[in-house]
Amino acid sequence: MDNTQYDFGMVGLGVMGRNLLLNIADHGFAVSGLDLDPVKALALENEADKGKPVKGTTNAEEFIQSLKLPRALMLLVPAGKPVDSAIASLLPYLASGDIVIDGGNSYFPDTDRRVVALAEKGIHFFGMGISGGEKGARFGPSMMPGGDRQAYERLRPIFEAVAAKVNGEPCVTFLGNGSAGNYVKMVHNGIEYGIMQLIAEIYDFMKRGLGLSDGALQQVFADWNQTEVQSFLIEITGEILKKLDEVTGQPLVNVISDRARQKGTGKWTSQNAMDLQVPLPTVDMAVTMRDLSAYKDERVLAAQQLGGITANNSGTEATEIINQLRSAFYFAMLVTYAQGFVQLRTASKAYNYELEMQEVAKIWRGGCIIRAACLEDIRQAFNTNSDLPNLLLDPNIGAALTQHQADVRAVVKLTVDKGIPMPALLTSLSYFDAYRSAVLPTNLIQAQRDYFGAHTYERIDQEGIFHTQWS
Amino acid sequence: MDNTQYDFGMVGLGVMGRNLLLNIADHGFAVSGLDLDPVKALALENEADKGKPVKGTTNAEEFIQSLKLPRALMLLVPAGKPVDSAIASLLPYLASGDIVIDGGNSYFPDTDRRVVALAEKGIHFFGMGISGGEKGARFGPSMMPGGDRQAYERLRPIFEAVAAKVNGEPCVTFLGNGSAGNYVKMVHNGIEYGIMQLIAEIYDFMKRGLGLSDGALQQVFADWNQTEVQSFLIEITGEILKKLDEVTGQPLVNVISDRARQKGTGKWTSQNAMDLQVPLPTVDMAVTMRDLSAYKDERVLAAQQLGGITANNSGTEATEIINQLRSAFYFAMLVTYAQGFVQLRTASKAYNYELEMQEVAKIWRGGCIIRAACLEDIRQAFNTNSDLPNLLLDPNIGAALTQHQADVRAVVKLTVDKGIPMPALLTSLSYFDAYRSAVLPTNLIQAQRDYFGAHTYERIDQEGIFHTQWS
Repeated sequence: MDNTQYDFGMVGLGVMGRNLLLNIADHGFAVSGLDLDPVKALALENEADKGKPVKGTTNAEEFIQSLKLPRALMLLVPAGKPVDSAIASLLPYLASGDIVIDGGNSYFPDTDRRVVALAEKGIHFFGMGISGGEKGARFGPSMMPGGDRQAYERLRPIFEAVAAKVNGEPCVTFLGNGSAGNYVKMVHNGIEYGIMQLIAEIYDFMKRGLGLSDGALQQVFADWNQTEVQSFLIEITGEILKKLDEVTGQPLVNVISDRARQKGTGKWTSQNAMDLQVPLPTVDMAVTMRDLSAYKDERVLAAQQLGGITANNSGTEATEIINQLRSAFYFAMLVTYAQGFVQLRTASKAYNYELEMQEVAKIWRGGCIIRAACLEDIRQAFNTNSDLPNLLLDPNIGAALTQHQADVRAVVKLTVDKGIPMPALLTSLSYFDAYRSAVLPTNLIQAQRDYFGAHTYERIDQEGIFHTQWS
Repeated sequence: MDNTQYDFGMVGLGVMGRNLLLNIADHGFAVSGLDLDPVKALALENEADKGKPVKGTTNAEEFIQSLKLPRALMLLVPAGKPVDSAIASLLPYLASGDIVIDGGNSYFPDTDRRVVALAEKGIHFFGMGISGGEKGARFGPSMMPGGDRQAYERLRPIFEAVAAKVNGEPCVTFLGNGSAGNYVKMVHNGIEYGIMQLIAEIYDFMKRGLGLSDGALQQVFADWNQTEVQSFLIEITGEILKKLDEVTGQPLVNVISDRARQKGTGKWTSQNAMDLQVPLPTVDMAVTMRDLSAYKDERVLAAQQLGGITANNSGTEATEIINQLRSAFYFAMLVTYAQGFVQLRTASKAYNYELEMQEVAKIWRGGCIIRAACLEDIRQAFNTNSDLPNLLLDPNIGAALTQHQADVRAVVKLTVDKGIPMPALLTSLSYFDAYRSAVLPTNLIQAQRDYFGAHTYERIDQEGIFHTQWS
């Protein structure tokens, strides 16, 4: 008979849940896992170091009873109905004061609903985004919890122990109220879509536009990871390009289909940005390009009917262009973060999250998919001014953008001449140019709306709402 | 005692409802209008030609009783709750077989809900988009009805009489099932956002980039309306630029605020396109730019910190650039329509609308805000192939785009050098270049997703779902 009182429980022992639980066990906590699949429950115990208090079970009641009071348990099950089902199945055994953490990519309004429903029973419900993939879960993810600030203090020792560390600082902190954790993770994923699309465009330009060999491509990304664009996504791109396919012997990426899939978090980010009236064009474009990639048959036909790209560049010229591409990527990556942080800031006000941007930047520096050297600069910007409305207005980041803009413009002109699409890059430059336009031509749009729909307009020289009989 | 049995009733006698009802009366129909505001009810009668059977009332029961059986009546009240309230207040007096038409910009799922609710009482509910503004309503709008095909036959004589005509063909037709009418109008408005943004960008480039005078700007748009870009929005832009402000004596547009407003139909279009996984980047960007325009104070600050545009062009050079701008606008306008028609096609399948694209193009040629000479070409394209998946694949439109692309590329390079944002134009070119890419770099995105999240991928050389241990 096992009388251990476990410190932490996990519901859902897929690879993410299992890895995170083993990570927690590594840091000296007694952990218990529940999965209806006995193979997964057993896998947990088998993968644990012998002698460590790690228990897997298929019995919900036994699982709950084995946890130390007040209980702390996490759900790592697919977003949507499975989360509600898991909560419903556990609820009869839970007690007031227990903490239930949803570690999946739940849609934030679902979390708000669950917080309210469980608060009625005295249960603290946390939505916590976790980023870092399988490996991150096992050895140090970035974790984005939101919910009840006081209840979080009980979780803090566990989460700070298992999170990724940057200069000794853990990549986890209490982020804010309600669904703040899921929201921050959603925007994290939106930024992830944007940066992945930017990298894909750079790769495409070097391949189709400059005619770089597979080996040269791989070397470029490996080299870049030692520069100002150092980041997880650049790092793994170098590693991906190195991987050979066992069937054909050529680089594996070359035999992968270009129809991109998505699980919807990028779309949620874009749709919510539109609801909040926050411009998020680079992420929008990344979502769009995944959608467009699905039209494979039409694209093949269109390539025949509408022509394609023009010429390649020679070797020496390529070196300079590659440097411009790195510079352009750096520029666009910063602009993408800037858009995402405006969304966080706006959402924080709209949903009363009370987010602190420097804390978000801090925990994104390590463990997560969008970790990057530049997040330290971003954190500094918010440390200097926590109310900074847009990163473009930070003197240092503004100076970096201004300094890199010539390279972006050079790349855009090249790619437009060649006919190679780099929509996320073009969009990032457009955002920069529009944001620094003291006067935009939207006055004409206001006039048109008033002309055809009597929607009225405002004037620059007096207060009020005006309508004109234009014709 | 008035014993007239009226052919058609209107609920909501604001300027749109009143004008449309007077239009119907002009064509020999007896019409009755209801508004709770007696001033508006009276205004209807006062504006009608004497002797014509036009009646205004504030009494719902009297209004309903005055209509010929089975009744045909339209609601022109603000979208949302007011529509439900109006239906609820009329319902006690309605009978099985009556037709209720919602002529506002209702969100299409609301229409689907109302169709079902009213069908239970034997009432035919129609969602009908109406475009053309006040003037269109009075003298010939474009009308987009969806609902029950058989019931529509009773409305057809009235609607065909009052609609705008192009070469004798009325700009109204039965579009499809359920909320098809509201849906088509929603996409119409999305395209409208896109084209308005494109025009604003062209105007901005000529003003800030080429330094054209107000008079020269006005002349350009007036001239353009005699060319292949002939359209309502180009026409009114010329008229708007001509209008002088009574206060300052300068062109009125120059004193209008550049913070753009919106009523949400563009946002709905973009958000729904993302749900359907249809790329709609030009409309997305138009929505984004309206959102960005609201950040006025930040933009003024950013202009100081991040620098601005560079030099103007000289006179002779300007003439050639203006021609390139017209060509670029034509290209981007066609691409915007193309995106919208893909959304309609996809939605038609998803929601069982049974839309016919050539019919949509036909009724958009006149009366509506996005009417344009090129809609005849678009109609021809769908007449030739009603299953055309994308207008870019039509040989004639494809040839036009291919022919104009050099000018687009020239303009993009100029504007990127100057630092003047033309995001919708850049986006339209990106869409073209991506759509005609037989191979996109999204294979790398699939590899990245599999690397960090084990999301699996597909191969180009064999069926199945694959996962690789990348590191």
